[in-house]
Amino acid sequence: MRTVEWDQGAVKMIDQRALPWKLEFVRLETVEAVAEGIRNMTVRGAPAIGAAAGFGLALAAQRSDAETSDKLVSDLIEQGDKLKAARPTAVNLAWAVDKLLQIAGSGAFKSPAELRAGLLAAAQEIADEDVAVNSRMGRHGAALVKDGATVLHHCNTGALATVDFGTALGVVRAAFEAGKDIHVLLDETRPRLQGARLSAWELEQLGVSYDIIPDAAAGYFMQKGEVDIILVGADRIAANGDFANKIGTYQLAIMAQAHAISFYTVAPTSTIDLAVSSGDQIPIEERDPAEVTTPYGNPIVPGRFKARNPAFDVTPHRYLSGIVTEHGIARPPYTESLRRAVAGEKV
Amino acid sequence: MRTVEWDQGAVKMIDQRALPWKLEFVRLETVEAVAEGIRNMTVRGAPAIGAAAGFGLALAAQRSDAETSDKLVSDLIEQGDKLKAARPTAVNLAWAVDKLLQIAGSGAFKSPAELRAGLLAAAQEIADEDVAVNSRMGRHGAALVKDGATVLHHCNTGALATVDFGTALGVVRAAFEAGKDIHVLLDETRPRLQGARLSAWELEQLGVSYDIIPDAAAGYFMQKGEVDIILVGADRIAANGDFANKIGTYQLAIMAQAHAISFYTVAPTSTIDLAVSSGDQIPIEERDPAEVTTPYGNPIVPGRFKARNPAFDVTPHRYLSGIVTEHGIARPPYTESLRRAVAGEKV
Repeated sequence: MRTVEWDQGAVKMIDQRALPWKLEFVRLETVEAVAEGIRNMTVRGAPAIGAAAGFGLALAAQRSDAETSDKLVSDLIEQGDKLKAARPTAVNLAWAVDKLLQIAGSGAFKSPAELRAGLLAAAQEIADEDVAVNSRMGRHGAALVKDGATVLHHCNTGALATVDFGTALGVVRAAFEAGKDIHVLLDETRPRLQGARLSAWELEQLGVSYDIIPDAAAGYFMQKGEVDIILVGADRIAANGDFANKIGTYQLAIMAQAHAISFYTVAPTSTIDLAVSSGDQIPIEERDPAEVTTPYGNPIVPGRFKARNPAFDVTPHRYLSGIVTEHGIARPPYTESLRRAVAGEKV
Repeated sequence: MRTVEWDQGAVKMIDQRALPWKLEFVRLETVEAVAEGIRNMTVRGAPAIGAAAGFGLALAAQRSDAETSDKLVSDLIEQGDKLKAARPTAVNLAWAVDKLLQIAGSGAFKSPAELRAGLLAAAQEIADEDVAVNSRMGRHGAALVKDGATVLHHCNTGALATVDFGTALGVVRAAFEAGKDIHVLLDETRPRLQGARLSAWELEQLGVSYDIIPDAAAGYFMQKGEVDIILVGADRIAANGDFANKIGTYQLAIMAQAHAISFYTVAPTSTIDLAVSSGDQIPIEERDPAEVTTPYGNPIVPGRFKARNPAFDVTPHRYLSGIVTEHGIARPPYTESLRRAVAGEKV
């Protein structure tokens, strides 16, 4: 079971809005539907969004009636813009679209039919590669998690945030499967409760010990000495190591430093954006306040009550103990180590 | 309209669990019902709990069939223990019970009937004094809030947390009523959402500008430079200035320091417990995990999912810019300034 996959002319994905109550799948048959699925968070998690966008562009190629390769490429550029506009912060989305557009424009295909087949193969490779990359990150990161450790975790970075296996929760899984006794404190992660709903569901299935905690209780457990390491994901990492991640990550970073607790982000190199030199250049999505006031259709306050809902924040690199990538754990200075990792060199 | 008041042989209070949807009152006619109302958070907020406990003990006196003063006092000691056991962290509860027991045991009353009347008058005085004290705190604290300021606030510390007017939100109200342009960022305050449900409701009524934010977004707004001052309440302040308050307060304190933002607690001297030398001696209540997983009866995850729910945390005094009391703003060293404030001297 994969979070996102190609299914006979459509993009099939788990509807993450229905979990943990129901495991439902949706089949999206147009690029508009895929863009909407990304926007409304049917699929979420930077690597999963990347894979969905890749399949979305392959779908656009299948559905285009262009009779020449040039016309098909120009259709794809247009459809790719729709996908990229779905969400602004996670760079994996643009990364996957641009990767496929580069292939489309390479002139390596003799006909529109070959190009369509080539793009689907490339999208499939992005998805397959994500699983392989996560498994490698899991091995690198598991060395950081000691037997008997309690890990504090934010949002969802498990199989559901990726094609399979996960990033930060993939590290937890790898450590657990290596026989280590692990406990995880799961920030519930308001407003959309990805920690309480998705991460808890995944750890239930894996059999890993956990407790959901309110986001405001993280500091309490650090103060009590109950947190050994903090692992989070990333939606975009700048060249200097600053990174955007789910709202609340920045607070954890400050608290990690105040309590001298190790703090790592776990992300594939597809999340690193060398075109962005520091975190203040990363666009931060502010979403509908109704996510705060009416989570999943349950109003917690009357509709006239006002709220703000920034979806991400940016954590400066100085708070990081390191960045776990598929090529190893990047350490400061990140401008060098991240450049090497993106080039595929061991870090 | 008061949060808690005496009503012809019963303790009448706003049912805070029904807000902001309905403004409902309950009449509690036994000491057990008052203790349960404190425990289940029909009434909450340290000063409001203190007033409720005072009226609760006066109610116990009315309902006791003791025919001698000695028997009545021994009944009251027993009933007082029931009230004190309702919640462990806020010291105002024990403070009010002990204050009335001291009066009961003073031997100043000639008959059980006089003692009953005397206790009711004393309970009424605690309630009246709370309103007067809050008004004085408001004036002292308002000087800290500049025209045009954005105040970050946690939980509810308004009229609903007291008999009337409020502590930290009372300062906001006083500054607003002095004509200052104020905006308030309200931490929603999971799990029970006192910020989103109660503080927003109060600010709506006062006409003060506000936005509810997820607790995990507080750091984001501080990083953006959008927070000028942080005001919170307190459930118990130790002799050295360490203080217990709603879970999440400690995180705000760490973030305030990291961003060089002023951070004050606003609390009457009835919240100061000189018998406790530092915060690590304050008992922290861990409440039912169902408050996290099933807020107000709406399950956000299946019942088998595990959660932890510490209701308070302790903030070390070194994070405080000052403590706003009815006798002025206490500053370090708190061991001296708090002792003076409790003695009724100007600080």
